[in-house]
Amino acid sequence: MKVDGVAYRTIWPDDDGWAVRIIDQTRLPHFFEIVRLDSAEAAAQAIRTMMVRGAPLIGATAAYGMALAMRSDSSDANLEESYSMLMATRPTAVNLRWALDDMAARLRRQPHDVRAEIAYARAARICDEDVAINSAIGDFGLDLIREAHMRKSGGPVNILTHCNAGWLATVDWGTALAPIYKAHDAGIPVHVWADETRPRNQGAALTAWELGRHGVSHAVVVDNAGGHLMQHGHVDLCITGTDRTTATGDVANKIGTYLKALAAHDNGVPFYVALPHPTIDWTILDGVADIPIEERDGREVTHLTGKDAAGNAVTVQLTPDGTPAANPAFDVTPARLVSALITDRGICVASAEGLRGLFPERAA
Amino acid sequence: MKVDGVAYRTIWPDDDGWAVRIIDQTRLPHFFEIVRLDSAEAAAQAIRTMMVRGAPLIGATAAYGMALAMRSDSSDANLEESYSMLMATRPTAVNLRWALDDMAARLRRQPHDVRAEIAYARAARICDEDVAINSAIGDFGLDLIREAHMRKSGGPVNILTHCNAGWLATVDWGTALAPIYKAHDAGIPVHVWADETRPRNQGAALTAWELGRHGVSHAVVVDNAGGHLMQHGHVDLCITGTDRTTATGDVANKIGTYLKALAAHDNGVPFYVALPHPTIDWTILDGVADIPIEERDGREVTHLTGKDAAGNAVTVQLTPDGTPAANPAFDVTPARLVSALITDRGICVASAEGLRGLFPERAA
Repeated sequence: MKVDGVAYRTIWPDDDGWAVRIIDQTRLPHFFEIVRLDSAEAAAQAIRTMMVRGAPLIGATAAYGMALAMRSDSSDANLEESYSMLMATRPTAVNLRWALDDMAARLRRQPHDVRAEIAYARAARICDEDVAINSAIGDFGLDLIREAHMRKSGGPVNILTHCNAGWLATVDWGTALAPIYKAHDAGIPVHVWADETRPRNQGAALTAWELGRHGVSHAVVVDNAGGHLMQHGHVDLCITGTDRTTATGDVANKIGTYLKALAAHDNGVPFYVALPHPTIDWTILDGVADIPIEERDGREVTHLTGKDAAGNAVTVQLTPDGTPAANPAFDVTPARLVSALITDRGICVASAEGLRGLFPERAA
Repeated sequence: MKVDGVAYRTIWPDDDGWAVRIIDQTRLPHFFEIVRLDSAEAAAQAIRTMMVRGAPLIGATAAYGMALAMRSDSSDANLEESYSMLMATRPTAVNLRWALDDMAARLRRQPHDVRAEIAYARAARICDEDVAINSAIGDFGLDLIREAHMRKSGGPVNILTHCNAGWLATVDWGTALAPIYKAHDAGIPVHVWADETRPRNQGAALTAWELGRHGVSHAVVVDNAGGHLMQHGHVDLCITGTDRTTATGDVANKIGTYLKALAAHDNGVPFYVALPHPTIDWTILDGVADIPIEERDGREVTHLTGKDAAGNAVTVQLTPDGTPAANPAFDVTPARLVSALITDRGICVASAEGLRGLFPERAA
């Protein structure tokens, strides 16, 4: 999407044709800095330190990491070493494993002298496929926003979102924000309520940054505010992303998503979840019971980093010394609270039947 | 309640018998500082700058402000001037108006030479009455916690609360936290989930501080976490305070309370609201429609103050430069989501019938 009028992806080949450039997302929203990755080690470091984040972007960066590895040394030994090094950066990321397995399987069966070329081509393809998937989600979701706009007598379509499922989490477009960008670009007036999304504040930092830079009207609200906004008719629909969707339509997403879905249900506000189809876990039927929830460091709750008056990044403590904190990172929203799933294959009811209708090859 | 073993109220007469001492709540949780108020101006300043906060404590401080005024100059002119000065500190605080009207009405009909003495006695009485009201709420709520403990096969009673309705918001005991202190002091094991309560973080700062200093087991969680905790059986009951309760049992409380009530309802967790009976607004029947919600400065959302590594209070910016923010300060939880109201007269169903049963004098 655009940053002050200039189109960007989150990862792209440098002008020299072999190095790779990324946006250092640890510096957002206060500093927009482009970083050049010129080795597999640099790509691994970028993933490990969360300069890149979001499952699709992690996968794309790992793929380019393999290409950089093959350019410097296309031996079998370096192929396996680079694969292992990149795999160890974020052990639980599904897209990371998928991208690395895909790259390694293709490269192992090729002669050494063409491995680099093939790796670059495949990494570029992985990026393009992610963009195509998200663009399709955007097109399907656009219809829902267009319908909401036609139902309104005037004013923008007010859309609440949680966390950051925007272009920064993918190669471009994003998932939850793709329909919003499509609507904005199509001239439909939209206004986004961006949940702050404590504890890591992806909404206040990343969603607000990318919407602002692309020119989409928005306001940040604390995570507590959404229910009140819905009670008073200030939200026409909600769209969030999901990290994992069960075969029955339950969705695991950033902690707090469930509370917004409850409020939407209580106020008759449609609650949509946008997802690329590879994130559907066809083996799980009960999300609340069976999706393990990561418990993260309590320091994310007790401390917070922002920009001080002098423009420096400063970390401050919010709680009394020694206060314990619990920090579950995700929660599960049962399918009964989800109005529809917006996938790259189309829109469906959040249910086993709904998903099987879009993915009949899974019906067996 | 106790601060590291020593019993405190939030306001008390100094040893000299005429000045007043308070805890400077703007310095909590990182600094525990006692401030001496020796004039009506100092009392007004303490209210204005939120060194004291919470409706009952604001009323008590204003009452002592009138006493300090009468000690320095008991003339009619100073009575009226001090009344106006104190009233202007927090124009919308109901208890402030009530305490000042009560003090002024009593003092106006007394001769000058006894006004100071009468004022001090009345201020002390206002404090004691607040303590008695909250202690009664605590005793009634204790029964609910005791019952929850008897229903459990083992482990502490896990109680979620939002914002700070503790002793710091009153003269002592608090409202929502009074039953918790009573249970803890009675030897019933309790564990409190303290919602952080963005944007002003009263939970992370004040609730965590007072529970910790009194020795009550607790952990801070972000406001997003409560739904997940309830889905997984980690919350036995919720207790919050309320700023205003309608004649039908709707409750206006800190923004985000409604979301926790929805989650409690969805998971069969009892959701109790504790209140001193003067905060019931018998003129309002529909809280969502008719309770005006204060919209506060967006800077509370975009910026946050904490303690840096050197121990200094530092304010940091969380959002991109120029990001708009909306900041509704309260929301309304409909009575249908409230399991019961805990008042100083007893416990009742959150409904017009329930409230009229406890307050038959209002049934006319």
